[in-house]
Amino acid sequence: MNREKLYSLIKLKRSFLCIGLDTDIEKIPEHLKKSDDPVFEFNKAIIDFTRDYAIAYKLNLAFYERCGSSGWLSFEKTIDYLRGIGNIFTIADAKRGDIGNSASQYAKAFFDNLGFDAITVNPYMGYDAVAPFLEYKDKITILLALTSNEGSSDFQMQLCGKKYLYEVVLTRSAGWGSSDQIMYVVGGTKSGVLTKARHLVPDCFFLVPGIGAQGGDLKSVCEKGMNDKCGLIVNASRSIIYCSSERDFAEQARKAAFELQQQMETELSNRKL
Amino acid sequence: MNREKLYSLIKLKRSFLCIGLDTDIEKIPEHLKKSDDPVFEFNKAIIDFTRDYAIAYKLNLAFYERCGSSGWLSFEKTIDYLRGIGNIFTIADAKRGDIGNSASQYAKAFFDNLGFDAITVNPYMGYDAVAPFLEYKDKITILLALTSNEGSSDFQMQLCGKKYLYEVVLTRSAGWGSSDQIMYVVGGTKSGVLTKARHLVPDCFFLVPGIGAQGGDLKSVCEKGMNDKCGLIVNASRSIIYCSSERDFAEQARKAAFELQQQMETELSNRKL
Repeated sequence: MNREKLYSLIKLKRSFLCIGLDTDIEKIPEHLKKSDDPVFEFNKAIIDFTRDYAIAYKLNLAFYERCGSSGWLSFEKTIDYLRGIGNIFTIADAKRGDIGNSASQYAKAFFDNLGFDAITVNPYMGYDAVAPFLEYKDKITILLALTSNEGSSDFQMQLCGKKYLYEVVLTRSAGWGSSDQIMYVVGGTKSGVLTKARHLVPDCFFLVPGIGAQGGDLKSVCEKGMNDKCGLIVNASRSIIYCSSERDFAEQARKAAFELQQQMETELSNRKL
Repeated sequence: MNREKLYSLIKLKRSFLCIGLDTDIEKIPEHLKKSDDPVFEFNKAIIDFTRDYAIAYKLNLAFYERCGSSGWLSFEKTIDYLRGIGNIFTIADAKRGDIGNSASQYAKAFFDNLGFDAITVNPYMGYDAVAPFLEYKDKITILLALTSNEGSSDFQMQLCGKKYLYEVVLTRSAGWGSSDQIMYVVGGTKSGVLTKARHLVPDCFFLVPGIGAQGGDLKSVCEKGMNDKCGLIVNASRSIIYCSSERDFAEQARKAAFELQQQMETELSNRKL
């Protein structure tokens, strides 16, 4: 799936919501823990109840690797399930990055074998750590630019001449592939930088984490980050999947996703998208 | 295992060789492919034949994830096998890095569940992406500083004021934990920077990739990077594990490992270590 198809999907569902399946085995409702694969059952229920309002699902590998090879099995079952549904953009939130030979293996794992549409990649090791992902022309490589955590100031905000490092990452990597293929993580909590990032890479999509359920945050992110093809995928994880720890967890997740979708529809309509 | 124990191990084996188990399913000798788990059988043979000469084994996750959950099973069997042997320093070459909550899951996965002594971590996201690993006082966190690939010049060599980014990474992160806990990847192919890196963090161990079987490389790395507790772990992967693709692959790997160990013993003895 490339940028054009992603935009079609956004128009179809009137949403640019990504739901982060950061499924923590310790936070799964009790009644699911008796099943053979509680993590997959949880994911399946969340997907079934939210898929009308979300265009994308992001699977954070950390939570699956925590459970070893059986966690990887839950991970594989979840992506298989998502691929069977259609009209969903799938992201492996893996934040991988390694020299060419190893990066090729990661690209094969997530693109060829598992069929993800996109993967998050850490840019620290430079071009040859990213190139093997960009060889897949119909897939999207999502580079970390400015993340939403406090520690992002340690290195991403280092001044390199007159530019911050994250700006150097944006401008340099933008030459590595087309805006159809490259997307960036730009932290939503730092909305000042969204304006700057949008100026530097006008066409690329941004994956924005760190947005709570508050409309105010979303409104500000849209003002600063949207372009004429939406250009934003906004992620929410815990604020959706852990709304309730009871039997109604999936219904409550649906309500939370619906609320965000409604706000997103307003933002899209306001801009005649 | 901390720095002191690592140094004892180096003195015991008269070696600072790490063997990288970058086990590519496509490069495994034909006769092993009939077994239930060719990757594990290959690793086991390599370990059995080289363990006299290597102090450490480094498992590169990319090659295991390439095979999905069954690859993760081979990975788990390999680390279990290594832990059973003793006198071996084990490194998960995962290059992970994510915000606190996710990094904690990775730390649990590799330190608690799998029992690795060390993991490679990408510093791009800053302190809070590294802190969850540093909470394990008896484990070692190996931060990427300057990698050995060409692309390392893209961002790691960006000038931040008067310092290169990798120097900022070294000096800033050195304050996050003790030199017992923190190690750095410093590329062996750029031996000019080894001197500088050693000056900036005199006590920390460096994990040096990118060394071929040539004695010249090793000699130069030792001149520039060794300290009074050795301070170096030198990795070799393909030049050892793929010496032969025939039935004698493990014997040939042993010979290649022995050659490197002999050169290392000379370097240690020359410095009265």
